[in-house]
Formats: sequence, C-alpha cells, structure tokens
Amino acid sequence: MSEAKHKVVIIGAGFGGLAAARALAQAPVDVTVIDKRNFHLFQPLLYQVATAALSPADISAPIRSVLRHQRNTRVMLAKVNDIDRANRQVMTDAGPVPFDTLVVATGARHSYFGREEWADLAPGIKTVDDATRLRARLLMSLEQAEITADPVERQSLLTFAIVGGGPTGVELAGAIVELTRHAARRDFRRFQANEVRVLLVEAGKRLLATFPEQLGHAARRALEGMGVEVRAGQPVSEITMDRIRIGDETIPTRNVVWAAGVRASAAGRWLDAKVDRVGRVEVGPDFSLPDDPSIFVIGDTASAMQPNKMTLPGVAPAAKQAGQYVGALIAARASGRAAPKPFAYRNFGALATIGRDYAVADLGRMHLKGRLGWFFWSFVHVWFLVGYRSRGAVALSWAWSYLTWERGARLITGAEVALATRAGEDAAPEPAKPRLEPAMTSAS
Amino acid sequence: MSEAKHKVVIIGAGFGGLAAARALAQAPVDVTVIDKRNFHLFQPLLYQVATAALSPADISAPIRSVLRHQRNTRVMLAKVNDIDRANRQVMTDAGPVPFDTLVVATGARHSYFGREEWADLAPGIKTVDDATRLRARLLMSLEQAEITADPVERQSLLTFAIVGGGPTGVELAGAIVELTRHAARRDFRRFQANEVRVLLVEAGKRLLATFPEQLGHAARRALEGMGVEVRAGQPVSEITMDRIRIGDETIPTRNVVWAAGVRASAAGRWLDAKVDRVGRVEVGPDFSLPDDPSIFVIGDTASAMQPNKMTLPGVAPAAKQAGQYVGALIAARASGRAAPKPFAYRNFGALATIGRDYAVADLGRMHLKGRLGWFFWSFVHVWFLVGYRSRGAVALSWAWSYLTWERGARLITGAEVALATRAGEDAAPEPAKPRLEPAMTSAS
Repeated sequence: MSEAKHKVVIIGAGFGGLAAARALAQAPVDVTVIDKRNFHLFQPLLYQVATAALSPADISAPIRSVLRHQRNTRVMLAKVNDIDRANRQVMTDAGPVPFDTLVVATGARHSYFGREEWADLAPGIKTVDDATRLRARLLMSLEQAEITADPVERQSLLTFAIVGGGPTGVELAGAIVELTRHAARRDFRRFQANEVRVLLVEAGKRLLATFPEQLGHAARRALEGMGVEVRAGQPVSEITMDRIRIGDETIPTRNVVWAAGVRASAAGRWLDAKVDRVGRVEVGPDFSLPDDPSIFVIGDTASAMQPNKMTLPGVAPAAKQAGQYVGALIAARASGRAAPKPFAYRNFGALATIGRDYAVADLGRMHLKGRLGWFFWSFVHVWFLVGYRSRGAVALSWAWSYLTWERGARLITGAEVALATRAGEDAAPEPAKPRLEPAMTSAS
Repeated sequence: MSEAKHKVVIIGAGFGGLAAARALAQAPVDVTVIDKRNFHLFQPLLYQVATAALSPADISAPIRSVLRHQRNTRVMLAKVNDIDRANRQVMTDAGPVPFDTLVVATGARHSYFGREEWADLAPGIKTVDDATRLRARLLMSLEQAEITADPVERQSLLTFAIVGGGPTGVELAGAIVELTRHAARRDFRRFQANEVRVLLVEAGKRLLATFPEQLGHAARRALEGMGVEVRAGQPVSEITMDRIRIGDETIPTRNVVWAAGVRASAAGRWLDAKVDRVGRVEVGPDFSLPDDPSIFVIGDTASAMQPNKMTLPGVAPAAKQAGQYVGALIAARASGRAAPKPFAYRNFGALATIGRDYAVADLGRMHLKGRLGWFFWSFVHVWFLVGYRSRGAVALSWAWSYLTWERGARLITGAEVALATRAGEDAAPEPAKPRLEPAMTSAS
C-alpha cells in the first residue's frame, strides 16, 4: 500500500461512523477510524444496562473486531481535541492525523437547557459508564431504603423521577418501575412494592411527541397500568439533592434521571462551522460542509435538511444510512465512478418498549402496540445488534429475564458508589427486625 | 417472630459467610448478613473477567437473591468499621448491629510484603473493580502500543509481568498470553504476536508450590509452550512505572500484575484477637475465639489448626466447609440439639487452568493434566457457581470463547482509564500507515 493513497479519517465509531467505514471496505483509500472508546455501543439498549437486565458487554463490540477484515482500515483509540482545517489534520492526544477526506460522526451528549448544574443531580445515559453509574444509584437507593429508620427519608429514596417523555424516558420509566417494584416484592423486607413511586415528567402535552398521537396515548396508559405516574404539560423548574419541582408541586426524591434533551458534540467548534440551536453542524444534502465538499458531518452531530424541509431525525437508522451514503460517495470519488444518487432517508419506523411485554411501534401505515409490538421490537433490536455474540447473549439474557423475572446484572460496582453514609449517621436503625412476607412461590 | 430470638450476625457474604447463612435457614434464630457489596462473587473466576473472557455479572449473584427464601435472614449492605465486643454489637456506617452470636468471614486482601508503594504499580485482583481496572489496563497497553512510534516504548507496553507463581499467577499468565497474542494476531496492525512478552515471576523454586511437584513442572512446560517466560527462584526487588527488577535483571514493562501474597482482612484488629503473621485470627478447632465460644472466624480471615498440625488452606472449599460447620453448630445450640461432630476438612483437590485447553488437577491419589484436566476444571467451576443464571451464562461464554477464540467482554470502561497522554506527548506517530497482514481465515 503506497503512501500516496487517499486518506479518509472517520471520527467516531457509532452507527454513522461504522457504517461509513464499512462502505469503504473495498475502496482504494486508506481509512483511519478514531474513537475515544475501544468499542461500538448499541446505544438504544443502554437503558437495559442501567436497569440491570443486560451487561455492558452484551451490547458492545470491540471496534477492532468489527473492522478486522477491512485491510485498508486502521483503528485508533484516541481523543480528538480539534480539527486543523488549514493543514488538513485531526488533532488528537496521540498526535495529529492528516486527512484528505474527513467524516465527523461524534454524536451527541445531554443538554440541560442552560441548567448545567443539574448534570450531577439528574444524570442521563449516553455511555456505558453513565449506565453502570445509574444502575448503582438505583440499586443503592433500594439498599438505603432498607436500612434507614426514617420513613420520610425512605419515601424519598423510593421515589424515582424520570425527566423527558421521549422514547428513552418512556423506556427508562417502564424498566425502572419493573426493576424496583419487583425487587421490593422479592428481595426487600422493610418496604412494600406499593411504596415505590415512579414519575415520568414531560414538559410537552404528551408522551412520545414524535409518534402518532394514538401511540403516545397507548404508551401512557400502559405505563400508568404498571404504576408510573405520568406528569405531562409541566416543566421541571428545580432539581436538588433531595427533591424535584414540577410546576407548583415539590416532590421529595433522591433519584432523578435525565432523558430530556441532547445537544451535538463539540464538532461544530472544531470545524468552525455554522451550527443550529442544539449545536448541530449545518450540512448540504450530501452531508458535506457548504464550503468544503471533502468534509462530511453525519448522525446526531449534523443538521441535514431533507427534501420535505424536515431535518433528518437523530436516530440510529438515520445515522447508519447517512454513513452508508457518505462512504459510498467517497468510494465513488476515489475510484472515479459516478456519484451515488442523492440521499433519501428510508424511515422504517419508530419503536418504544414499555416494560417486559408491551411496546408501541410506528411503522408508517401500520401501528403496533401491546405484546405484538414487544415481540417485534425485540426481534428488530436483537437483529440489528452488531456482532453475533451480542445477538446470542442478548437473546439469552432476555429469554431468561422474561421467563424468570430475574435480573441478571444487578451489581453495584465502581468507586463512585462509596456507601453514602448520610443515611446512617442520623438514623440508628432498629437492627435485625425483619418484617417478613410470605415466600414467593413463583419462578426461582 | 419475637424480639427475644437469638441474633446471629454474619459479616461477609463470600463462600464462608454465605454457607453459614444457608446452614442457618431452618434454625430458630434471627440472621443478619452484612456485606459492603450487594453481590456474592465467584472469586476463582475473577481472572477471566480481568482477561475479558467473562463479564462481572457472569460470576456474581445478588446476595438478596441467593438468600431470598430464608425467612429468618436479613441482608444489610453496609461497611463494618469495628466490633464492640463489650456491648456485643457490630459497628457499621449504617449504625450499630447487636449480636448474640457473631460469624466473621471478611476474607483477605493483597499483601505486598511491606512494599505498599507497589500496590498502585502492580495491582492484584480481589474485587470486580480490580478486575475491570486490570482489563482496561491490559487492553489500553495494546492500544497504546498500536499508536506509539517509539519502538522502545512499544516493547515496554507489550511486556506483561505477573508476580507470583501460585494458581492465580499461573492462571493469569496463561490467560494474558492468550488474550494479548491472539489480539495482536487478529486486531492490531503495528506489532506482531511474537513481540508480546509475558513473564511469570516466582520467588520460590517452582510454580504451584502447594501442588505435587510433577504438576508444578507440567504447568511450567505448558506455560512455556504458550510462550510465557517463567522466572522461578528469584524475588522481585523493584517495581516502578516502567520497569521491574528480578534478581540482577531489569526488564522494561508498563504492565505488572500482582498475584504473590494475601493478608487477612482487618478483623483481627476489630476483635482485638491474636493473629498470625499474615493477620489471620487464631481460632479453636470449632472456629470460635479461644476466649469467646459465641464469636467465630472462618475462611481466609482465620488461622485454624487441623489435627495434622497444618492450618486450613485459604481456598474456597475450605471456607465453604467451615461456614457449613459453624452454621450447623449455631443451629444445634439454638435448638438445644447435640453439637455436630468435630470439623474435619474434606480436601477434594486443587485445580489450576492454563489457557484454553490445559489444566492441572491434584485429586490426591489422582493427578490430571492436559485437556482432560481442563474439562474437569471447567465442569467443577461451572457446577459450583452460585445461581443457575451464572451457570448458564458462563457455560455459554466459555463455549463461545472456546469455539471462536473470540473474547466477549473486551471493553475499556471506567473513568480511571482516561487516555494516558504520556505516550502521545513525546511521540509524533506516523499516522495512517498500517502495516497490513494477511486476513485471518479462521473463525469469525
């Protein structure tokens, strides 16, 4: 392979970046994929890691393994700090990496709408570490509720508020109510399942705003049937260590989870490019910068206008399709072939699952809900998992959870979950006085 | 259940503590199990988490799940700070817990033989967090070796030294040489498998000192066959960030792993009891303190003399048997039945596995080695895993690894593995110049 070969650098190995790399497998170019993590993450299932149903490895695949057979592709684990457009190189903490063509696919992070002080109080889940931290926090709240002798503190520990009624918030609320109530029934002695309170807070009028109205209502009914209190139409005005304020109401809670907003990564700043109000880089119909046809931005980092005047949605299939398109375009240029026909987003629909046997699916002409939706959803998700091992492990974990109601990954790990001593200091628990409940006869 | 019932407190839910709790399931006592973690860990397989073959959840079971059906037993997640023998209560960070009978089963931690400054330089694996940290460190070294342009630094990153030639050291050395050489062959471009160097350092004359000599030699030959350099008979005299000194030789390495020594937990201090030179509490033949028949110490925390004048070995089966015995003894006392007959350790043998299809097993009269040893070892380990889910998941992961040579849990996670910038600062890597190797045709 000669030095002179055209250099394509892809930043980010999410759905978009990985699709672009794969589309370049046969192209006469040198590809370098840079990511700050060594694994690709199937982010749509991250909430299942946070709620102890799956292990991180179940929904991850090492980037090197995924791209192992692409002989023209190099994987680089490094953190990108800037892009030097003048000298055409990506600045990383492992040195500069020159490019002829650049694909930026660095995703999004949470947005707290200017209330950045909420970030620590109401964590969201974007990374594996976010998810294991949230898992530890949820499980630790139950443990502390078992220990404390103060009923007010116990209620606050047993109240879980999820902010944001989109798919992530809906899925988290369903999974959290299942995890906590089920654990309360089976594994704890000093509180009952009906003492656990799960709130889903949405500032807008209804849940799943991007879905047809009928499915949003169905999701709400399903969640309420599971015991979730849905608060729609009122924004959150305050979050502190021990309470949340929704409209005029203050609710004591130690557990607030953020699923309300995202903003694009820092790529707009790196590129010194025009961005929209959530930081997405404005790109042309082929995802290139208006002033540079060899720099592409895709996925959650891009604001791409479609022919219907809507921006491309920030979902995995859209990122994947954009990556495939850009990869094909670069491959065509490199081999002197005709460019592929203009990008057109194929919307296969949207899905949101609610607990262990309910989901809503918007397939355009067809709407699914209930158990059929759940089976459809499971099939689609497992199918799209990258790598066969993940597929098998996830299917097995799910089948196991479904049959036994058992949670497989209920571990509190990590230095950050040093036992909170606050609960213990002011409470002298009556020790060893278990309130016994009849042994469960079902599954185990 | 009356307040007046006899209170048994068990500190630690390892093999010993859990066995004691289970033996008390039908006894007319109130049992409280205190642990600082919410899960029981199958520690003998922890090295497989550290080498990316298994996920933490595969070898863990929530303590509450394990003890769910014991109606007389309460689980408490809390950190023990002291034991107040005068007032007969355990001091935890969630308040004091009174006891009538106490079982201390708090295990062991690493010992650096007075060189505590080595703890950060040469981490060992006792906890899940230790194992995931070591996993991140091993994988990160490979990633950095791929990035650096300095051949001396690369060799140092590709050199792995394991200190301690007991079963843990032997198992780690085999797993590390497999993981790193295999990854080098398949997933990295800038170094070859034969550039990876794995050393196993043992101060004593031979490996597996507690096994019959013949099996120690067999283990050494097997490791050497896999490419491990075994250095026996010379102690480690120095460990720094970038080198290890063995006898007169200094070897540059960024990866030193500790498997050389353990010392008992702080229980001796809590109890103000007589301890041996590795901190184990000296107990009578029934595991009680010489001056208090209602306080028991078992497992790695205890120094228990056997009739043959040997102390009980610090292995999982011994801890489990001691827990069962002590639980039965307490149950007998509580119900006014005759005490069980004196404790006698049943030694089922010892096992050490070396890589993916070799193991040595000492079954007393019978010695196994090779693939038969491996199958036997796998069967025994999977069988003794606590909880059916673990059993199934581990069997699946192993079968998968065995058939495909794929590593399932190759994730670098955790805040502590912030990208080491040192490699990048002084090295300006030649970017995007992959040294290509023929695509592997085998399994994937």
